[in-house]
Amino acid sequence: MTVTVESQLVGSADLNSKYMSKYEIVCDMGEGFGKYKMGPDDEIMPLIDVANVACGFHAGDYNIMKQMVKLAKQHNVKVGSHPGLPDMMGFGRRKWAIPPEEIYNMVMYQTGALKAFLDAEGMPLNHIKPHGELYFYVERDVEVMKAVLRAAKAFDVPVIGAKSYTYEKIAKEMGVDLIQELYVDIDWSVEGKLVSVQQSRPKNPEIIYDSVVEAGTHDNIISFDNKEVPLNFGKNPFMLCLHSDMPTALGNIKAARKAVDELNAKKF
Amino acid sequence: MTVTVESQLVGSADLNSKYMSKYEIVCDMGEGFGKYKMGPDDEIMPLIDVANVACGFHAGDYNIMKQMVKLAKQHNVKVGSHPGLPDMMGFGRRKWAIPPEEIYNMVMYQTGALKAFLDAEGMPLNHIKPHGELYFYVERDVEVMKAVLRAAKAFDVPVIGAKSYTYEKIAKEMGVDLIQELYVDIDWSVEGKLVSVQQSRPKNPEIIYDSVVEAGTHDNIISFDNKEVPLNFGKNPFMLCLHSDMPTALGNIKAARKAVDELNAKKF
Amino acid sequence: MTVTVESQLVGSADLNSKYMSKYEIVCDMGEGFGKYKMGPDDEIMPLIDVANVACGFHAGDYNIMKQMVKLAKQHNVKVGSHPGLPDMMGFGRRKWAIPPEEIYNMVMYQTGALKAFLDAEGMPLNHIKPHGELYFYVERDVEVMKAVLRAAKAFDVPVIGAKSYTYEKIAKEMGVDLIQELYVDIDWSVEGKLVSVQQSRPKNPEIIYDSVVEAGTHDNIISFDNKEVPLNFGKNPFMLCLHSDMPTALGNIKAARKAVDELNAKKF
Amino acid sequence: MTVTVESQLVGSADLNSKYMSKYEIVCDMGEGFGKYKMGPDDEIMPLIDVANVACGFHAGDYNIMKQMVKLAKQHNVKVGSHPGLPDMMGFGRRKWAIPPEEIYNMVMYQTGALKAFLDAEGMPLNHIKPHGELYFYVERDVEVMKAVLRAAKAFDVPVIGAKSYTYEKIAKEMGVDLIQELYVDIDWSVEGKLVSVQQSRPKNPEIIYDSVVEAGTHDNIISFDNKEVPLNFGKNPFMLCLHSDMPTALGNIKAARKAVDELNAKKF
Repeated sequence: MTVTVESQLVGSADLNSKYMSKYEIVCDMGEGFGKYKMGPDDEIMPLIDVANVACGFHAGDYNIMKQMVKLAKQHNVKVGSHPGLPDMMGFGRRKWAIPPEEIYNMVMYQTGALKAFLDAEGMPLNHIKPHGELYFYVERDVEVMKAVLRAAKAFDVPVIGAKSYTYEKIAKEMGVDLIQELYVDIDWSVEGKLVSVQQSRPKNPEIIYDSVVEAGTHDNIISFDNKEVPLNFGKNPFMLCLHSDMPTALGNIKAARKAVDELNAKKF
Repeated sequence: MTVTVESQLVGSADLNSKYMSKYEIVCDMGEGFGKYKMGPDDEIMPLIDVANVACGFHAGDYNIMKQMVKLAKQHNVKVGSHPGLPDMMGFGRRKWAIPPEEIYNMVMYQTGALKAFLDAEGMPLNHIKPHGELYFYVERDVEVMKAVLRAAKAFDVPVIGAKSYTYEKIAKEMGVDLIQELYVDIDWSVEGKLVSVQQSRPKNPEIIYDSVVEAGTHDNIISFDNKEVPLNFGKNPFMLCLHSDMPTALGNIKAARKAVDELNAKKF
Repeated sequence: MTVTVESQLVGSADLNSKYMSKYEIVCDMGEGFGKYKMGPDDEIMPLIDVANVACGFHAGDYNIMKQMVKLAKQHNVKVGSHPGLPDMMGFGRRKWAIPPEEIYNMVMYQTGALKAFLDAEGMPLNHIKPHGELYFYVERDVEVMKAVLRAAKAFDVPVIGAKSYTYEKIAKEMGVDLIQELYVDIDWSVEGKLVSVQQSRPKNPEIIYDSVVEAGTHDNIISFDNKEVPLNFGKNPFMLCLHSDMPTALGNIKAARKAVDELNAKKF
Repeated sequence: MTVTVESQLVGSADLNSKYMSKYEIVCDMGEGFGKYKMGPDDEIMPLIDVANVACGFHAGDYNIMKQMVKLAKQHNVKVGSHPGLPDMMGFGRRKWAIPPEEIYNMVMYQTGALKAFLDAEGMPLNHIKPHGELYFYVERDVEVMKAVLRAAKAFDVPVIGAKSYTYEKIAKEMGVDLIQELYVDIDWSVEGKLVSVQQSRPKNPEIIYDSVVEAGTHDNIISFDNKEVPLNFGKNPFMLCLHSDMPTALGNIKAARKAVDELNAKKF
C-alpha cells in the first residue's frame, strides 16, 4: 500500500538560504492544554526566531493558540503550524495507521485553524512543521510525505523537516520548499537519522551548546554511538529546532541562543 | 458579568438584499462524524443554495468537511462555517457557561479550519452561522454576540442569524453584516423568537411548504400557539434555513425548494 | 519489544461446552454515540443470546451502555464488555502502537465502567470481548494478548476470541477461559485467520445462513478464495458472532438465528 | 424542570463518626492527563488519609488512575471516586446543563472504571465525591443531587459533600450516608456556602493551619467578609478537604497535616 522511503541520508539544504540569512532557532510552542501547562512559553518566546504552534490535536487548544500568536507578534517571532496526530494521551508520539488522505485533511484543518488567528493579527503563516510521530511518519512513508506537502502547497508555505535527500527531492517535484532543520536535543543515528524523543538520551545545556558550535563550525553532528555524522549544510544556514517540553527546555534554549548568536556574529 | 439581550422582536432584514436577489435555502450540512451518518448530505446538496458546514466541535470532522466543500462546489452551493460548542455528546445543543473570549477563539478555530478546505478549492467563505446552543447563546448574551461578530469581522464575512432588532443593531455598530434567516422546521413563540429544536413539535413537508408560502406571500409565520407573527421582511428576500438531521429532512427540503421556486418565479 | 504470535491455526475450543450447552449468537451492541445511531439495537436484542456492549472508546457512551444493559436484561441476554481503542474517528479499527500496559489499563477502565451498570441491575459480567483492531492486536502480539487476559483474570470472566491454538494455550497458562467464537459475516483466509472488516467482501443473509449450516453440519468454513477450512469445533458448540454495524445487519442476524435454531434442534 | 435547593446552612454531620474516629485529610488526586502533570501526587499521598481519584472526565486517565490506586495502597490511604463533568478544557469547573439522568450515568461510568482498579488491588471503594462544578450542581439542583445519591446507593458507598442540612436530609431519605467535609483552601460565604475555586482568594499554608485549628477548636470558619460562620460539627470529627492543583498545594497539605495531627492528639 505505502512505500517505504529508502534513502534519507542528510540532504543539501539548498533552499535554506531562501528563508534565512543566518542561523535561526525554532521551537515547538503552545503545547499545554486547558489548565495544563507544558513548556515555559512566556520565557522561551523572546529567545527564539520561529515558533511551531501546536494546533489542538496532540497538544494545544484554541485559547493557547491565540495567546501564542499574540506573544509571537510581540517578540517579532515568525509562526508556523505544528500539526500532530489526534492523540493527546500519547502527545502525538505513537505510531497510528491513519491513511494519507486523512493526514492531508488533518494538516489542512489544524493549519487553517491556526491561520485564522494569524490573519486576525495580520501575520503571515510562515510554514508547516509536522509534530512527533507525524514528523517520522512523513519520513517513513512517501504517501504521507506527499499528503503533508500537498497541504503545504495549498497554503503556499514551505515545510520544515529533517535533513533528507528523499524529502528534498519529492518536495521539489511537488513544488514545495523544504527548510532543513537541525535537532541537537535528541539523538542522531550514524546514518544521519533522528532518534525518537522517547528513545533519546536526555541532553543538558552544555551538550546543546557544544553541539550547535560543532554543527556551525565543522558541519558535523555526533551520533549517539559517538561517530561524526557529516551534515552537509555547507554555506547554507540552518534552523535549529528545540523542544519546549523537556525538563531542561529553558536552559537548553538559552545555551542554543548563545551558540547561535556567536556563530552568526562570526559567519553571517 | 454578561448582559441579557432584551428586545429581540423581528428585525428589518435591510441587508438581506445585499446578499440575495431572491429567496434562498440554507441547510446545516456535514453533521456526521467518523463512521456515523447524520443527514442525507448527498441528496440534499443539489436542492439548496447555501450550506452551513459543521466544523468538528458539535458534529462533523476534517474528512467530512472536505467532502462537503467538494460536493458544494460541484452543485454551485455557497459555503459558510457552522461552528458549535465542543459537545458532540449533546450535538452542541446544551447550555454551557463558556466565556465570551473562549467563544471567539472557538469560532475562529472552527471557521479557520473550514476555510482551509475552501481556499484549496478556490471557494470563498460565504458567512458564519452559529449552531444550536451557540445560536441561542448569541441571542441571549450580548458579550457572546459580540464575540461571534468579532470573529465574523476578522474573516470579513456576514453572519447568518435570527430575525432580531438587537442583533441587527449591534452587528451594524460593529461593522458586520447580518443576514436574517427564517426557520420553518422548528416552532416560533408569539414574541417572534425561535423555540429550541428539542422543545419544538415535529414538522412534516406539508407544514413546511405551507409555512414558506405564508411567509413569502403574507410576511407572517404562525407561532406554536397559532398566532400570526409579523415577519417584516417586506421586499427583502430571506434565507430559509432547514435542518438536515431531522427524520423527515429530505422531504422537508424538497417541499421548501418547491415553495421557494414558486415564490421566486412570482416575486423576483 | 513485542513478540509476534506465530501459529494461529484454529484451536480446539475445549472450554466452549463449559459456557454453552448449544450454539449461541453473540452480537456487538450499543455502538452509537450521542445523537448518532449505528445498528438497530432494539430489533437485534431479542434475536441474540449474548451481547458485547461497546464502552465509549471506539463507540458507545454511558447513556447507551445503560440502555443496552436494561434492554439485555429484558430479553434475557448475557452481557460482556466490548472494549476498543480510543479511536471514535476510526471506529477502533486502525492499528495504533499503544503499549501493552496501557491496553490493560484501558480494558480495565472500560469493563469496570460497564460493570457498574450491570451491578446496578443485578446482572453478572459475562465476558470480555476486544473490539476491532484490539481483537487483531491481541492475536498479533502476545504481550497485548496477556494484557487483555490479565484484565479478564482481574474480573474473573472468560474472554471471547478467535479460534486459535496460541490464544488457547496462553489463556490456559494464565488461568483464563477462552470461549472460541465463529465469524461468518467477514472473510476467512485459508490459514484459518479472520480478515479485517474493511478488507472483507460484504455478506448477505443467504451467505450467512449457508455458512452457519456448513459450520454446524460439516465443521468447515469456506475461505475467501473458496477453500474449505476445517474448524475443529468437533462436539463443542460455538458462539456465532455477528456485527450490528453492517448495512444488512438485521437480515444477517435473522438468517443466523434461523440456522442456529435449526442446528440446535438437531444437535443439542 | 429542576428545583433549586433552598436551605443549605451547615448540617449536623451526624454520620461522620460512623466513618472516622478522628479528623482526616482528603485530597483530590490524579488530576494530570497523559503527559500533563497537575499536583505533586507522589509527595501528597503519604500526607493524607483519603484520596478522591479523578476518573478521566475533567482530569485523569486510565494510566494515572491505576498509579493512584497502587500509590494509595502503599500508603494505606482510602480511595473514593472523584467524578466530574466531561470538560477537560475547563477542568470540570463550568456550568453545563446536563440532565440528571445523564449525570447519574456518568457518575456510574467513572466510578465503575475506578472500581475496576481497586478490585484488582483488593481495595474497597470508599466513597464518591463529585468534582468542581458537579459538586456545586449537586447542591444547586435536587434532581442532580438525587442522581449522584442514586449512584452512591448503587455502589453502596457514602458520598462526601459540603456541610448542608438539605443534602443531609435528602441523602437520609434515600438511604445514603453523607460524610460532611470542610474546605479551608477556598472561601466561605457568611451563609455557610462554599465559594467556587475561580472566585476564591488564594490561601497560603499559614491561613490553612490557622483555619483548621479554628475549626477544630472553636467549631467556626471565617467567611470571606471576615465573619465567624458556626460549623456545628460538635463532637463529630470532620474530613478536611484540600486541592492538589493549587500552586501552594504541597505546603497547604503539610500545614493541614500538622494542624490535624495536633487536634487529633488533643481531642480523639
